[in-house]
Amino acid sequence: MAGRPLIAIDWGTSSLRGARLDAEGGVLEERAATRGILSVPAGGFAAVFDELFGDWMQPPAALALIAGMAGSRQGWIAAPYCPCPAGLADVVARLAWVAPGRIAIVPGLSCERAGVPDVMRGEETQVFGALHLLGIDAGTLVLPGTHSKWVRVEAGRIVDFATLMTGEFYALLRRHSILARTLPDDDGGFDAAAFDAGIAHALRSPGLLQSAFSARTLALFDRQPLAQRPSYLSGLVIGEELRTRALRGGEQVVVIGTGALTQRYERALASLGLRVTGIGPPAAWRGLLEIARRIEP
Amino acid sequence: MAGRPLIAIDWGTSSLRGARLDAEGGVLEERAATRGILSVPAGGFAAVFDELFGDWMQPPAALALIAGMAGSRQGWIAAPYCPCPAGLADVVARLAWVAPGRIAIVPGLSCERAGVPDVMRGEETQVFGALHLLGIDAGTLVLPGTHSKWVRVEAGRIVDFATLMTGEFYALLRRHSILARTLPDDDGGFDAAAFDAGIAHALRSPGLLQSAFSARTLALFDRQPLAQRPSYLSGLVIGEELRTRALRGGEQVVVIGTGALTQRYERALASLGLRVTGIGPPAAWRGLLEIARRIEP
Repeated sequence: MAGRPLIAIDWGTSSLRGARLDAEGGVLEERAATRGILSVPAGGFAAVFDELFGDWMQPPAALALIAGMAGSRQGWIAAPYCPCPAGLADVVARLAWVAPGRIAIVPGLSCERAGVPDVMRGEETQVFGALHLLGIDAGTLVLPGTHSKWVRVEAGRIVDFATLMTGEFYALLRRHSILARTLPDDDGGFDAAAFDAGIAHALRSPGLLQSAFSARTLALFDRQPLAQRPSYLSGLVIGEELRTRALRGGEQVVVIGTGALTQRYERALASLGLRVTGIGPPAAWRGLLEIARRIEP
Repeated sequence: MAGRPLIAIDWGTSSLRGARLDAEGGVLEERAATRGILSVPAGGFAAVFDELFGDWMQPPAALALIAGMAGSRQGWIAAPYCPCPAGLADVVARLAWVAPGRIAIVPGLSCERAGVPDVMRGEETQVFGALHLLGIDAGTLVLPGTHSKWVRVEAGRIVDFATLMTGEFYALLRRHSILARTLPDDDGGFDAAAFDAGIAHALRSPGLLQSAFSARTLALFDRQPLAQRPSYLSGLVIGEELRTRALRGGEQVVVIGTGALTQRYERALASLGLRVTGIGPPAAWRGLLEIARRIEP
């Protein structure tokens, strides 16, 4: 596929973004739209694609690769999960072609522990991109979010991963639980000391069912000012996530993402004595470029 | 107080119940009302008490003891928490008298771990009652619920306890999380196999943030019929609660409560090889009787 322009697309549940790349992976142009798969009616994906990226597909030699939920049952076409361990070659072999040779959807990955499956869609592409951007082929990577993914890579292949519903638990506790009664309406600014206290309490607690109640009792005993409480709760849930990971001091952890949430993870991981490497959104484009490079012409 | 009739009241957040006891603790009559403290306006508690129990207080020699949230800041009068370790004598010394010699509120308990407080109101009375009903003065007791309490007793005193927000987490996940999308509207009947599978998965998982996602993936892979999913989720959260307890095989655990939830805890605890003793609602009346017996005339 050398020399062909690549249209790289990350088509998620609630939003979509795309980039036009040159042969070396340089970004020529980017576009984003609130046209996540939940906003697209069945049978309507081709029209949305043409509307947003039709001009980029000229000349006809362009290749479009799409990562994310577009390959789910509710997406454009189903791209069945690729079982772990999985490397770039495995993903390339299982691309789901919407238009042969022109538009393909990258499959998500699945893994299984004790008879229970886990899944990801889109994060695998960011992981492959991050590995190439960092020049590494093994390690532990985390993608913080509503559903955080912890990924273990060996010899360039994703051998195992786990989903933790950290961001969703935060939102549930923040808005719908009894804790919401003692929290301010607005999250306000980040309070580093309160966040660190939440991390520390979660790490010495046996689990979130118990540590979460501390957000209530600290308020009840007037030991925590109102403005600190959202940051404390954020520390509790992120600390709970880190408590359950088998991290060794000095180990390197790659944090993929951008913005305030990523910074919180980097801060918490560094406080545990881990070597933290952050990598931003270009990871997705680089992952798609590496996939494109492995497609037989 | 020997020979005086006791009016035993459990006045909670959303409901209230009372019993008229004879000197040996026999229940002469019971009453319940949906007049929890949240339904009573400030300054309105005496009127509600008189309305519901005024006739029981005749002859004037009767004593009323009230356990529960009636002693909270939003209750009748504040009964400050009694710090652990705390036995019957400590609670008696800290009764909050609404009408000296006639009506008193039992204080809740507090304990502290690593600078973070924990609290209970009402459960302490049930624990004291259960100890007397069972004729024991030490052990591990659990009161399952929206906020489960795990209580450790030594030499008749509550030395430590922990609150786990298990029931509330179940409700949050059941109704407000992404898992709700793959759950039936109605909980339906209890499915023992699915419940046991949830318990087992929680026990081998590092934490609920991760194990909860299995409710989604099992549905996604069509491995769990719709009707089984609520019982599986119930098993996941109760299993998470048990995972975090330091329980030794063969140990006795007293489960205080009644109904379907208590039965689930008893089933799960028995499956872990624990010796389970169940004890029902009379525990609260017996606890209040033991407190009354220790009040100096």
